[in-house]
Amino acid sequence: MRKLMGKRSKNLICCGLVAAAMISPFERAGGQQPQAPPAWPLELVTNMEKVRDAALGSDYAWRQVAQLTENIGPRLSGSPQAEQAVNYVAGEMQRLGLEVKLEKFMVPHWVRGEEHGELTIFPGEARGTTQKIVVTALGNSAATPSEGLTAEVVVVTSFDELAALGREKIGGRIVLFNKQFDKRMAAQGKADAAYEGAVVYRVRGAQAAKALGAVAALVRSVGGADYRLPHTGAAMAAGIPAAAVTAEDADLLTDLTRQGRVVMHLVLTPQTMPDAVSYNVIADLKGSEHPEQVVIVSGHLDSWDLGTGAIDDGVGVAMAMQTANLFQQLGLRPKRTLRIIAWMDEENGQRGAKTYAEEHKSELVNHVGAIESDGGADHPVGFNGSLKPATVDLFKTVATVLEAIGANLLEDGGDAGADIEPMGNAGVPVFGIIQDGRTYYNYHHTAADTLDKVHPSELAENAAVMAVLAYALANMPQPLPH
Amino acid sequence: MRKLMGKRSKNLICCGLVAAAMISPFERAGGQQPQAPPAWPLELVTNMEKVRDAALGSDYAWRQVAQLTENIGPRLSGSPQAEQAVNYVAGEMQRLGLEVKLEKFMVPHWVRGEEHGELTIFPGEARGTTQKIVVTALGNSAATPSEGLTAEVVVVTSFDELAALGREKIGGRIVLFNKQFDKRMAAQGKADAAYEGAVVYRVRGAQAAKALGAVAALVRSVGGADYRLPHTGAAMAAGIPAAAVTAEDADLLTDLTRQGRVVMHLVLTPQTMPDAVSYNVIADLKGSEHPEQVVIVSGHLDSWDLGTGAIDDGVGVAMAMQTANLFQQLGLRPKRTLRIIAWMDEENGQRGAKTYAEEHKSELVNHVGAIESDGGADHPVGFNGSLKPATVDLFKTVATVLEAIGANLLEDGGDAGADIEPMGNAGVPVFGIIQDGRTYYNYHHTAADTLDKVHPSELAENAAVMAVLAYALANMPQPLPH
Repeated sequence: MRKLMGKRSKNLICCGLVAAAMISPFERAGGQQPQAPPAWPLELVTNMEKVRDAALGSDYAWRQVAQLTENIGPRLSGSPQAEQAVNYVAGEMQRLGLEVKLEKFMVPHWVRGEEHGELTIFPGEARGTTQKIVVTALGNSAATPSEGLTAEVVVVTSFDELAALGREKIGGRIVLFNKQFDKRMAAQGKADAAYEGAVVYRVRGAQAAKALGAVAALVRSVGGADYRLPHTGAAMAAGIPAAAVTAEDADLLTDLTRQGRVVMHLVLTPQTMPDAVSYNVIADLKGSEHPEQVVIVSGHLDSWDLGTGAIDDGVGVAMAMQTANLFQQLGLRPKRTLRIIAWMDEENGQRGAKTYAEEHKSELVNHVGAIESDGGADHPVGFNGSLKPATVDLFKTVATVLEAIGANLLEDGGDAGADIEPMGNAGVPVFGIIQDGRTYYNYHHTAADTLDKVHPSELAENAAVMAVLAYALANMPQPLPH
Repeated sequence: MRKLMGKRSKNLICCGLVAAAMISPFERAGGQQPQAPPAWPLELVTNMEKVRDAALGSDYAWRQVAQLTENIGPRLSGSPQAEQAVNYVAGEMQRLGLEVKLEKFMVPHWVRGEEHGELTIFPGEARGTTQKIVVTALGNSAATPSEGLTAEVVVVTSFDELAALGREKIGGRIVLFNKQFDKRMAAQGKADAAYEGAVVYRVRGAQAAKALGAVAALVRSVGGADYRLPHTGAAMAAGIPAAAVTAEDADLLTDLTRQGRVVMHLVLTPQTMPDAVSYNVIADLKGSEHPEQVVIVSGHLDSWDLGTGAIDDGVGVAMAMQTANLFQQLGLRPKRTLRIIAWMDEENGQRGAKTYAEEHKSELVNHVGAIESDGGADHPVGFNGSLKPATVDLFKTVATVLEAIGANLLEDGGDAGADIEPMGNAGVPVFGIIQDGRTYYNYHHTAADTLDKVHPSELAENAAVMAVLAYALANMPQPLPH
């Protein structure tokens, strides 16, 4: 997933026509512009173009996603598949000639169990009839008794409504938070904002309901599709069962509770196991001039357990692996160290991100930049992150190189990935790729996050963006200021 | 569902401009045209327009679908919900003042059980890792042992491929029929043809696999969506377990079996119970002049059990009920008898259709026409059926009335509904509504066939088509020839 509650500023700097005017800033050094961008060596720009073209012509990233999703499968932290994925990525990076380390820490180990729901009393109910409710447990949900629990359903659309009902009307009940994901916003290209408008109920709903005595919490799935598909995701542990229902089931519950009393039987038997050992995979291609200076390319290796973690985030890991592959294949040893990181536990606690930021604290001053992709692999339109006025001109040349694939939009700020946020907070310049996210939340955290959702040519475009930006950061004449 | 294997002829007769030229054929009686259509009484045309406009302004049909789907739910033949739906429709038709009969027969009573699948051996498999395979039993599937069965998977794309592999390579295996539903055809408006190109493997695959010694049969879901949603449906009983897998899982199995040996564990525990008593609901609004002459409007009341049977075919029943409601509300007693039929068991054997055709055999000569809608309730573009050159001109006036809603396409032949096919074969003129079917097979026979898939305004348009056509058939000066 993307950050739970990230803020998204919208300071778009560069797009089509502006970028077109910038095609060869280095050729115009000393020209008329009062603030001409710093000159980039021609060789560096030529190499960025080579990296871009090699990425577009390669299926390496695709083969990595296929391996992670079809030959390994869902990779929830603590699972055997997560362990297998760590070993696979480490082995593949060694094969490419990188220096590989596994950095160890403990991760949550939550395991899904049985899950089903049905209405036993509802307006229209007759002898022997029920209505099935499609549910899936949220990460960190407590279990119901093995035979399930049965309680009346109360539907609210906000925390304010919940508070207004109070303990008397919430106590002993199952609460459904029926906040809709705004599909119109998503269709307009503001999918992250649509997500952020609803996901707070997935994250905090169970705790809020528990505080008023609820026996379980349900949330309307946070996503845009209408195929009766529940969307899981992390919830703050509340000590009560917490599950997502599909949009259709949320509508059904809403309609029926408006008509009369609705009683639901809910079975969820997840288990919270002792924390397990796991790892970030860290693979370095040492810099030729400044090996102590580091540029990170990354995605997260863990995934939710319903699908096979293709768009979230097998593709991000594959783009990072492809960056290493391209540099090696083209013989482009970077001046600074290129560090590939396959993060563990982005989905259920960000233990990998926290551990890295803590254990590498003293080295962060030499982290020149960090890139993570965690928004799928639909067509990229540019990149975002640390693009302040003082340094943005540097990136216009990079945008120009990416204009050939329509990825020349620059955005100051925005969501650059949950795993690199801690080092961003410590001053490291952080970057994300801006993808066409209109359908991302149709599949995100569902069983349908599978390999077929990745379009090979668009994945290659995304790998080109990550690799070109990384090449620029690793070879630019001066490192970016913190 | 629509007919299992219906043939679809494409003889389009009437569309936009042609119909526009026909606006008032009765006003041009005796005009220049060599073959002017027969004159329709002006009052009859005016009443058709009244019926149309009342249908468009009414939410009665919508409320019926809501009742059937949300307050009753899935209605597989033999289930308590199917019984409840019979009682509901009968009661509602009585309330409208119709003469109601329940016509009794025995129906299959097949009950879904547990169902899951996972790969235990596959290329990439490591200690403790599996790949989940999303399965749903097909109607009439046999059960696996309660602990499941485990066997190697063989993938074929046709019966010819199956035959070529023969008993040696099929015996003891699980066969997957991986025939794709052609999404491009569906997008082009030929969804029925796309369905018919693939559904034969769902219907006959298990029998063909069993004949070569297979221990279970899987079929790629016959439908157009990519949300990891399995599509159920009837299969010919084969004595082995038979299930649909999602498109994504079919792709996964295909990719992995190309790489090496794939072994699957499959659990399906459906039960085939003794046949149960059920009913067609038959409600008559007696004709004022020719009560012995009958015009049928209908949909099927049973549904598959995964969703709530909204588009397949709660909407068809609702259109038929709305036809009765409109005639009563407008005080338009028809000259011939209007007969509403809510068919039982369309999905799993067509016992209702067969029983009616048999028990009413001697009366069919007085059945002037029969309409069934069983293709959802997206925007209607016209109607099809018994529109031979000798009689088609009669219907151009009806098409003209429906032109206001864009439903003036006339098609000779086509799929007019499985429940009226037996009486069509006996010479009764049969008709269907042609809907925009581009997304119908995305939801058909899945858990996502729910109320939200019905657009109230488009359902009202469909009800207008059924009611106007029924009004014409019930009041036209001469009955149609058989």
